[in-house]
Amino acid sequence: MIIVSETPDLQKRLATVRKSGRKIGFVPTMGALHEGHLALIRACRKEKLFCVVSIFVNPTQFGPTEDYRKYPRNLKKDAKLAEKAGADLIFTPTAEQIYPTGYRTFVEVEKLSKRLCGKYRPGHFRGVTTVVLKFFNLIQPDNAYFGWKDAQQLIIIKKMAQDLNLPMEIIGVPTVREPDGLALSSRNVYLSPAERKSAPVLYQTLLQIKNDCEKRGKSLEKTLKAASSRLKKNPLIKLQYLEAVDLNTLEPPENTGNEILVAIAAFLGSTRLIDNIFLKV
Amino acid sequence: MIIVSETPDLQKRLATVRKSGRKIGFVPTMGALHEGHLALIRACRKEKLFCVVSIFVNPTQFGPTEDYRKYPRNLKKDAKLAEKAGADLIFTPTAEQIYPTGYRTFVEVEKLSKRLCGKYRPGHFRGVTTVVLKFFNLIQPDNAYFGWKDAQQLIIIKKMAQDLNLPMEIIGVPTVREPDGLALSSRNVYLSPAERKSAPVLYQTLLQIKNDCEKRGKSLEKTLKAASSRLKKNPLIKLQYLEAVDLNTLEPPENTGNEILVAIAAFLGSTRLIDNIFLKV
Repeated sequence: MIIVSETPDLQKRLATVRKSGRKIGFVPTMGALHEGHLALIRACRKEKLFCVVSIFVNPTQFGPTEDYRKYPRNLKKDAKLAEKAGADLIFTPTAEQIYPTGYRTFVEVEKLSKRLCGKYRPGHFRGVTTVVLKFFNLIQPDNAYFGWKDAQQLIIIKKMAQDLNLPMEIIGVPTVREPDGLALSSRNVYLSPAERKSAPVLYQTLLQIKNDCEKRGKSLEKTLKAASSRLKKNPLIKLQYLEAVDLNTLEPPENTGNEILVAIAAFLGSTRLIDNIFLKV
Repeated sequence: MIIVSETPDLQKRLATVRKSGRKIGFVPTMGALHEGHLALIRACRKEKLFCVVSIFVNPTQFGPTEDYRKYPRNLKKDAKLAEKAGADLIFTPTAEQIYPTGYRTFVEVEKLSKRLCGKYRPGHFRGVTTVVLKFFNLIQPDNAYFGWKDAQQLIIIKKMAQDLNLPMEIIGVPTVREPDGLALSSRNVYLSPAERKSAPVLYQTLLQIKNDCEKRGKSLEKTLKAASSRLKKNPLIKLQYLEAVDLNTLEPPENTGNEILVAIAAFLGSTRLIDNIFLKV
């Protein structure tokens, strides 16, 4: 596995891969790799693509009060994990390289980027779509892999790729979970032991909503309300939102049989966790 | 020369060109082709690239009170002119194809898109950068050609290409003028005979400013003020702006010896014309 930090070097190496006739797969990450990221790398390798993993903590997707500075960084450990999972190349540019002085261009997927997390993290998805588009242009992958844990991100990137006629496929990979159901996240390391113990309640809540609606025929609206009230009584959890939306538009679901995304965001102490589940009613 | 209106057809044909080892050049236009557009096509041909000309009146770059509906459209005449100048392929998609229902993604070059024309045409450059980026992704050209007549547009596209790491070269081609100096524009056909007779005063004004500053060492600020007052006395001309800016940033020029763009926009009747000149002070 090669580690590359300069874009001319990256592009020279990828030109060689492309000339050999091999397709290129891209796994964008902010590092602090866990089994969720490794599942993306494995999905890429399973399709026999040359697997490029970017490790870049992207400043433009963090709000001024968010955890950009303290976000976990450990390139040595990440490189080992990525290599073991099958990565062929790690790309780790500096922030100055990606956003040089005088940087001005941003891409935004309207409406979708204002819903769910977008309401609470203004500018977040604009930062995500911008950096992902830049990496797409630098790497020119055939496929790019994103986890369903960040469902809104995946849906927005898919929409951007479709709207901007990007010549690649965006592939969603299922969320990887701890044995107790907690979705893997680089931010889980921030949790205190007590918070960690409470954290699986987010996924348990989603599972119960899915079960109540799909199997027991309960009203989605009422089920969501009941679940929100239950969570609000939990002293360790500060619910930010628990919402059901259309899986494609992220707008309130219509009764059309479309798939529904139930998404949750909550603070445990100062750590913000998100999770989601699909259901059909 | 081939005329293509569907994107799958376009992409199949361009894949064949690319496989043959030939580079692709792209000339984006809104049709109503004149010698200015033909100069772009010829620049592309001179470099022996396969020349793709798009003809698409882009709705997202027109304001609600602007001339989107009445903008001149004549594909048959345009195709003849483009072919004679050396175009290999014309791409003429429908607005529905480029912006299908539910379209959401826009790209913006901040600051640069708010200066000069951007102040008077809110959203215009956002529409331009978005459609150009879409066409770049559809065509994947090696080079793209833009006229210096639309200097702000060219500067913004260059900045977008640089910021987004687009793997192509953006090439500026000098403005083509009528014998009396009027810059060629598809909108010149709107001018009444009297307006047409007055129109060269825009370029004459720019030339005089350049001469006064470069040759006669006059102050740029004073020269601009004097020129503006003169133009404001012309009953056929409604000056929108006459400004000097740094050629790269479009910000007020600093005394650093950078090249300066002097740009003008004015209404003659209901027709808005623009022009510009470079100078060094």
